[in-house]
Amino acid sequence: MPTVRFPTGKEIEVHRGTLVARALQEAGIETWLPCGGRGYCGRCRVKMEGNLSPPTGLEREQLAPEDLARGVRLACQARVAGDVRVLELQSLTGAQILTGGGELPAAAFQGTPLLQKHEVKIDPPTVRDQRPDAERLQAALGGSYHLSLPLLSRLPALLREGDFLVTAYTGEGEILKLEAGWNHGPPYGVAVDLGTTTLVAYLWDLAEKRCLGTAAAGNPQAACGDDVISRLLYAGTEAGGLARLQALAVAGVNGLVAELAAGTGVSAREIYRATLVGNTCMQHLFLGIDPSCLGKAPYVPACRGPVITTAAKLGLNIYPGGIVEFLPNVASFVGSDALAAAVAVGLPEKRGNTLLVDLGTNGELLLSTGDGIFACSTAAGPAFEGAGISAGMRAVPGAIDQIYPEGEGLKWHVIGSLSPRGFCGSGLVDALAGMLALGILEAGGRIRAPEEVGPPGSRYVAPGSRGYDFSLDPGFPFRLTQADIRKIQLAKGAVAAGMITLLEHVGLKWGDLDEIILAGGFGNYLNIQNAQRIGLIPRLPPERVQFAGNAAGTGAQMVLLSREIREKVLALAGEIRHLELAGTASFSRAFMEAMLFAPWG
Amino acid sequence: MPTVRFPTGKEIEVHRGTLVARALQEAGIETWLPCGGRGYCGRCRVKMEGNLSPPTGLEREQLAPEDLARGVRLACQARVAGDVRVLELQSLTGAQILTGGGELPAAAFQGTPLLQKHEVKIDPPTVRDQRPDAERLQAALGGSYHLSLPLLSRLPALLREGDFLVTAYTGEGEILKLEAGWNHGPPYGVAVDLGTTTLVAYLWDLAEKRCLGTAAAGNPQAACGDDVISRLLYAGTEAGGLARLQALAVAGVNGLVAELAAGTGVSAREIYRATLVGNTCMQHLFLGIDPSCLGKAPYVPACRGPVITTAAKLGLNIYPGGIVEFLPNVASFVGSDALAAAVAVGLPEKRGNTLLVDLGTNGELLLSTGDGIFACSTAAGPAFEGAGISAGMRAVPGAIDQIYPEGEGLKWHVIGSLSPRGFCGSGLVDALAGMLALGILEAGGRIRAPEEVGPPGSRYVAPGSRGYDFSLDPGFPFRLTQADIRKIQLAKGAVAAGMITLLEHVGLKWGDLDEIILAGGFGNYLNIQNAQRIGLIPRLPPERVQFAGNAAGTGAQMVLLSREIREKVLALAGEIRHLELAGTASFSRAFMEAMLFAPWG
Repeated sequence: MPTVRFPTGKEIEVHRGTLVARALQEAGIETWLPCGGRGYCGRCRVKMEGNLSPPTGLEREQLAPEDLARGVRLACQARVAGDVRVLELQSLTGAQILTGGGELPAAAFQGTPLLQKHEVKIDPPTVRDQRPDAERLQAALGGSYHLSLPLLSRLPALLREGDFLVTAYTGEGEILKLEAGWNHGPPYGVAVDLGTTTLVAYLWDLAEKRCLGTAAAGNPQAACGDDVISRLLYAGTEAGGLARLQALAVAGVNGLVAELAAGTGVSAREIYRATLVGNTCMQHLFLGIDPSCLGKAPYVPACRGPVITTAAKLGLNIYPGGIVEFLPNVASFVGSDALAAAVAVGLPEKRGNTLLVDLGTNGELLLSTGDGIFACSTAAGPAFEGAGISAGMRAVPGAIDQIYPEGEGLKWHVIGSLSPRGFCGSGLVDALAGMLALGILEAGGRIRAPEEVGPPGSRYVAPGSRGYDFSLDPGFPFRLTQADIRKIQLAKGAVAAGMITLLEHVGLKWGDLDEIILAGGFGNYLNIQNAQRIGLIPRLPPERVQFAGNAAGTGAQMVLLSREIREKVLALAGEIRHLELAGTASFSRAFMEAMLFAPWG
Repeated sequence: MPTVRFPTGKEIEVHRGTLVARALQEAGIETWLPCGGRGYCGRCRVKMEGNLSPPTGLEREQLAPEDLARGVRLACQARVAGDVRVLELQSLTGAQILTGGGELPAAAFQGTPLLQKHEVKIDPPTVRDQRPDAERLQAALGGSYHLSLPLLSRLPALLREGDFLVTAYTGEGEILKLEAGWNHGPPYGVAVDLGTTTLVAYLWDLAEKRCLGTAAAGNPQAACGDDVISRLLYAGTEAGGLARLQALAVAGVNGLVAELAAGTGVSAREIYRATLVGNTCMQHLFLGIDPSCLGKAPYVPACRGPVITTAAKLGLNIYPGGIVEFLPNVASFVGSDALAAAVAVGLPEKRGNTLLVDLGTNGELLLSTGDGIFACSTAAGPAFEGAGISAGMRAVPGAIDQIYPEGEGLKWHVIGSLSPRGFCGSGLVDALAGMLALGILEAGGRIRAPEEVGPPGSRYVAPGSRGYDFSLDPGFPFRLTQADIRKIQLAKGAVAAGMITLLEHVGLKWGDLDEIILAGGFGNYLNIQNAQRIGLIPRLPPERVQFAGNAAGTGAQMVLLSREIREKVLALAGEIRHLELAGTASFSRAFMEAMLFAPWG
């Protein structure tokens, strides 16, 4: 059988004629087929080499000839004709910003899923065996599961309808659903990263442990404020504000679930478990929990969690009795997203000193040392997610995700070979580094006038409504304004100051750091050197800096797949020590220093 | 302080001027004040002697002069003026058939109630103590309780509204309700005996462990059939039959709760726990569980239980989040009522051989021997509860509960000094014994013609629509017909045959029985000699025969009051060994013999 090789080195064998999309699924790689594999959206692009079927008419329609020439194909159209090699998956994973490396650690696949499906053969009653039906079922299941009254009510009819063969779905010590006879279809689960700015959902076949798809969208709560603080204000001052914020968050997740269901042919009612992560405020708002005390000193959450409830109670459009779990937070501004990211990158197992920087709308910092794990958060704002910036956007097709010097000027890369519509987080970092290199940007954050700069830099500067703008190409309908630069400056200053203060607090210096891991917020192509150049992260040797993609989403999926990993996450929530930086003198001092766009550390 | 002495020998001291009703409550005696103690229903009668306040105007209005003369008073009017002695409580406890001796075993009062109320002082958060509100609450409660999402949602506001003092109601490892500040009122619970024919509810103050009242009514499901089998048929054949039966049972309990609430001034929404017992069919029907397999071989229930749910889910009108528990059954025809009765009479602790006969609409027999407890059931029908008999009624005011020879004829006692309206169970047993003594009734069950009997018996016989009727007094608008006698004959035959077969099965003879305990069905005044005379129970020496009243109701109350007793009941459900009598040759043989109205054993 032909072999398919992946960028990670993984290899699988498939039948000749297998669709590439199918081969990717078999390899456990997340795929995103927005049009359901019908070949008309052109978004499931994958760069490959080797023996593939000739391009179809739909591929010729959707792909530029030069892309086809360099090996770009549509995963829903191309078929494996012999040994092939997958070179690049980026556009296939859709919202590239969010999906991590496409594969989870092996531990996730070895665990017990949080939702299990059983084929249960039950001994029929006889005059000599008059045990109640429920005891009969439990004995056949080999465990003691809670059986809700609605299920119990129909149990006698159900057992006899299936001639004492039933399909049982269990999770969290409870029987969630019973069907007469054996239902061959797999049970599904969904992991959700509920970001302040961006929502991402991952659909899993829990029997085969296969990711069927990923979907991402902006958080609809943005209508009530861009950041956590403005949403807390909205919840606390608008009549029905909390209820509206909750409804928006649930609607956002429902939208992703519907998109995933449509794109994969899965019925949303066969999704029996949802595992969610998010910052503490998002956790409260999604669950409808009064978040007022998160927004004022001494900043306490209502609960840590995990909060477990059913889909019907939240209005989540999956199986109504399906279990919805929001993983526990660590503190008011260190959420389950940071916790999940920590587990995804293996922080608890690290030897030496490792700093995890999870950049969502908040910057959450977790430092693992010989003395345990310390956490703090900084109010970075959504700039690195492309939000709140005039030309900012998520890392979706059409976003400039990389900018690099070429000759005397700058070149760029657009996700999905489309006309560029704006910058995503990694593009912004590159833009700033490019501006510094060309002398357009002062370390203090001011964009210089063209006459201060001179060629070649001056051609990237254009007069703006306040001072000057950075204009990558005169043909683009978007620029980076002076106001945009100030927002990014505040964000990067807050994050860097958080790092400085956290290290100071535990008595470490930069040289003591064995590893720094950047996660979240950016696309998968963050240029580490550029991040160091603008002073977002310190100048450690390149081999000590890693980029982990959307580690929070990865962690949420790992929990969905493994009871053992879930246990680890729950235990970790209580072990991490939180440091409150807000208002401390050392943070304020560090913040002033860290505002400069200049290398440090 | 004056002393009040009770029929049981118990004594309490009260302040001079204490209302008798209040003194009874303080002694832990169930009282029933239908008009809420306002003196206009005249039903809280109590016979007393000693130093009491002079009769009030309301008492002179409500009580006949001869009753006043022999010491009958209204508990809601009379006050203690010095030492007094309570002689008779019967009309005070309302539906006398059902309330047992008015006091529970001491163990019930020593246990931990299933619902607890806590005054919780919580440490307010500070910058140095940023624990989540929920953890703060749990720490102050000193336990780990589940907190539902609706409660959690409002927790931050609630804690601050009460300035970090809250009232918490807990049960079953869960926080059921939280109130800001300290609520001085006691938490209430209700125990319910859900009989096929009769429903009885007991309202308890769980803080003071005081029974506030008892209410009883016919089971409204009678509209769908008098006995278990006809209701199973209704559930299985009528469209919506099960739902209707469930709704009727719930409505019946709601009626009792409303009556208790109105009579005591308690708000039904402050009842946080309901503990129910009943036969297995009633358990299924009340909970809406498909009972179809109870009605056909091999007769298996859907579940054993206990089934725990919330009031809102069942439509029970107490606190919506209140916990409703139906205790476990033993087998298809041995329910939690028999189980509760067994615990109420201390069956598991008995040494020697003890037979408990619980006569509801089914006759449930539990035999405790050195080898454990054995159970069986017989389809007795509701005759001993006064149902299905033309002149039958529950043991409520107006029922003849005792008949005794006086001179050459018969005299009778009516509950509540009212005009008689029919016979309750104990009155029926006495009537049959009287008929046998006067030669009116043949052992085979035929009522003799007046000319066969001659005076004085002949004056109690009158021509009926089929054969002859037993007419206690020509002025009464009711008689016992030949058809009534046949129903009683079948009932008593089934019960007696069950006893014979059960003893045979375990290899015991009558002489081996150390004790026989009769419970349920009858009033509190069953004449044991008469029960032996008609052959309902065997001729054991009188000291070996006890009457335990409504032991099922007593057991349900004990469980409500004591977590420890509940544990015992749950364990016992799995330990009792059930014998299936239906269709066995030995039972059929015994049944034929046991049909005779004649002493045996």
